[in-house]
Amino acid sequence: MSYRERLTVDPARIRSHLQSFARIGYQPGGRMARLAFTQDDLRARQLLLHMMSQIGLFTRIDEFGNVFGRLPASGDAASRPPVLIGSHLDTVYDGGRFDGSLGVVAALEAVTLIAENGVELERPVEVVSFACEESSRFGRGTLGSGIVAGAWEPEEIMELQDRDGQRLGKALQRIGLEPEDVGRARRSPGDYAAFLEIHIEQGRVLEESENQVGVVDAIAAPSRFRLTIAGQADHSGATPMNLRRDALTGAAEIILAVERFASDAPDVVGTVGVIQAEPGAINIVPGRVVFTIDIRGTSSDQKRQVVENVMEAIHETARRRDLETSIETLGEEEPVQLDSGLIELLESCCEDRAIPYLRMPSGAGHDAMQMARICPSAMLLVPSRRGISHNPEEWTELEDLVAGVQAYSDATLRLATQS
Amino acid sequence: MSYRERLTVDPARIRSHLQSFARIGYQPGGRMARLAFTQDDLRARQLLLHMMSQIGLFTRIDEFGNVFGRLPASGDAASRPPVLIGSHLDTVYDGGRFDGSLGVVAALEAVTLIAENGVELERPVEVVSFACEESSRFGRGTLGSGIVAGAWEPEEIMELQDRDGQRLGKALQRIGLEPEDVGRARRSPGDYAAFLEIHIEQGRVLEESENQVGVVDAIAAPSRFRLTIAGQADHSGATPMNLRRDALTGAAEIILAVERFASDAPDVVGTVGVIQAEPGAINIVPGRVVFTIDIRGTSSDQKRQVVENVMEAIHETARRRDLETSIETLGEEEPVQLDSGLIELLESCCEDRAIPYLRMPSGAGHDAMQMARICPSAMLLVPSRRGISHNPEEWTELEDLVAGVQAYSDATLRLATQS
Repeated sequence: MSYRERLTVDPARIRSHLQSFARIGYQPGGRMARLAFTQDDLRARQLLLHMMSQIGLFTRIDEFGNVFGRLPASGDAASRPPVLIGSHLDTVYDGGRFDGSLGVVAALEAVTLIAENGVELERPVEVVSFACEESSRFGRGTLGSGIVAGAWEPEEIMELQDRDGQRLGKALQRIGLEPEDVGRARRSPGDYAAFLEIHIEQGRVLEESENQVGVVDAIAAPSRFRLTIAGQADHSGATPMNLRRDALTGAAEIILAVERFASDAPDVVGTVGVIQAEPGAINIVPGRVVFTIDIRGTSSDQKRQVVENVMEAIHETARRRDLETSIETLGEEEPVQLDSGLIELLESCCEDRAIPYLRMPSGAGHDAMQMARICPSAMLLVPSRRGISHNPEEWTELEDLVAGVQAYSDATLRLATQS
Repeated sequence: MSYRERLTVDPARIRSHLQSFARIGYQPGGRMARLAFTQDDLRARQLLLHMMSQIGLFTRIDEFGNVFGRLPASGDAASRPPVLIGSHLDTVYDGGRFDGSLGVVAALEAVTLIAENGVELERPVEVVSFACEESSRFGRGTLGSGIVAGAWEPEEIMELQDRDGQRLGKALQRIGLEPEDVGRARRSPGDYAAFLEIHIEQGRVLEESENQVGVVDAIAAPSRFRLTIAGQADHSGATPMNLRRDALTGAAEIILAVERFASDAPDVVGTVGVIQAEPGAINIVPGRVVFTIDIRGTSSDQKRQVVENVMEAIHETARRRDLETSIETLGEEEPVQLDSGLIELLESCCEDRAIPYLRMPSGAGHDAMQMARICPSAMLLVPSRRGISHNPEEWTELEDLVAGVQAYSDATLRLATQS
């Protein structure tokens, strides 16, 4: 059997669907924002439900607001665990047109091809748009997929607050959902045959290696810290160098240590993205510096070692420079290995279409990271121009989108039709 | 003739005047801020004008907002160049109660003693509070004295901006002064017989050597720069270490180079006091960092060498890390040697009162540094407990304040009465 000729993705439809979503939340000046559970997010889900109906999917919104659309199978196959495909539609404050939306549009494309061609399914295919994947509104991401996969305690999640102090529980009530029912959205191992997601890379690895597709083997998890260094604020002119307790020169040593230790570990990255020096005047030796450390890796062992090395460097610097430090842990997550069978399937789909691909880790977190807790999961990435994401300048060339969605659709078809 | 018995300073009055100023700009939690030309700065000047009137001085506010109060002389003496005494009332963001205020209070004390005792003057005595001595608001210091002494181009100074982007010219307009008239505040060599200033040390040299007074022989001058480093903002998870152009790790190297080169030169200090990283998110590699560099020394040669070394380090780091840098010179001043005649006078005043003193350089810049351009100028310093200044914990013991103000008043009296 080969549906291959008939199941060729339609570039015009992919582009048109992406544009339809990009218009929702669009703001003057080219900016776009669809924060989770805001009116624009709801508009995007409304459009998704409409598109799902057009394809003939059976739609369902679960207790956390995750949107599902099922293409059913017949006979015995109807009751088998479905293949789940999708991503998310919410964005960051200043979002792009691909982060999240591409994964939903690709899932719609795959299921459209299967439906249009009357493919005989061995199991249902379900399209999902997980709610609140971005951490921008409530400070924590992959909430919808984490609820489904049992990663979060619903009671705890309901207490998260946005910038304006609104609780997530309240935001759900405002769209007619009951916070106390959220736990019912949880699914168990065995409920899904597989989860497949496609997403933009948000980095430059594919662009620089000239590949069209990345097959993700592992998703890096961040360990995040907020470090406060206290020294003594002194007059910059009247305080000899040997009498200083400069919090910023101490911080500079630690920033370079984060870079050095992360560079030495092949599968780890380390970043200081936020820094504040106080009192912050040109003629005052900084007495206090606060900065964040974000260390990620696909290898638990390497990440743990880098975190240990950085902590030791912090204490050594503090001792030598007579500084005080306090370290607050903001998050400590484990890397996720994706399913090897699915990785091979995705690679074979790329090979069949002669699509240049690279097996690679994902440095960014995604819904697939949560779904891997309860079913075999895998991910494809497509290039991001200049690595830009979470920004209106986010861009992926149509031919790369098409290559990625094609491999993704082929893999979905194979999973849905193999007995 | 000896006014010495009668011209003994009044410790209670000195303390009371210092407290009156310290209350202006006081904030809950013990902090105090009177940034140049802010409402609290204006309140402090208002109080000064009131105090001057009480003493019977003729007050005047010049075109830059410098506040003068003149004790006139009679007959021929009335038209002779006056002795100018004073300092400043503006503070840094988190200021102390002595930096600046002490010099104004001491000048009021000296002129009060002279007025109360009906001393026959050979020339007028003028008290001054220079505007905007601190660089905290507009990024450059000694503006008021520099305008009077002709150190700054008024047009250029008017364009300086504060944190909120407000131009200095606009700040002047808001208090009723015309930016285009500022040049008229300039005075010429010969307009003043001398300038005397007393200030807290802001370092630990007097405390450690157990002297009550420092007689300043030279003032270290700062070279100040604002450095912008541009790399590329990238997703912290999705960008491998070797593909990064991290502006903050580049900045960290330069911060440590400033410290290292300044430490190697005996008469130089170097400081990075302000740093800003953009976009400033925990999960984004900083694409742009802006920070200040402040290098000071009493030796021109050593300072020049340190500046050269730092510039070379900046270029080397930028080259190696593929970063772009732009360096803005905020100020480039030469160390100032003070007047040897006045230094001897101040030393003799200390000796007459058996006050233990030390001849020493000042690492901090002061208004006297500017006034030395147009008249013989000199300075006294009093100890700062633990060297702390620009901080609410700034402290000088009353007996040291009294010793310093006594020597300062004696010197003022001698200058005002010698023909």
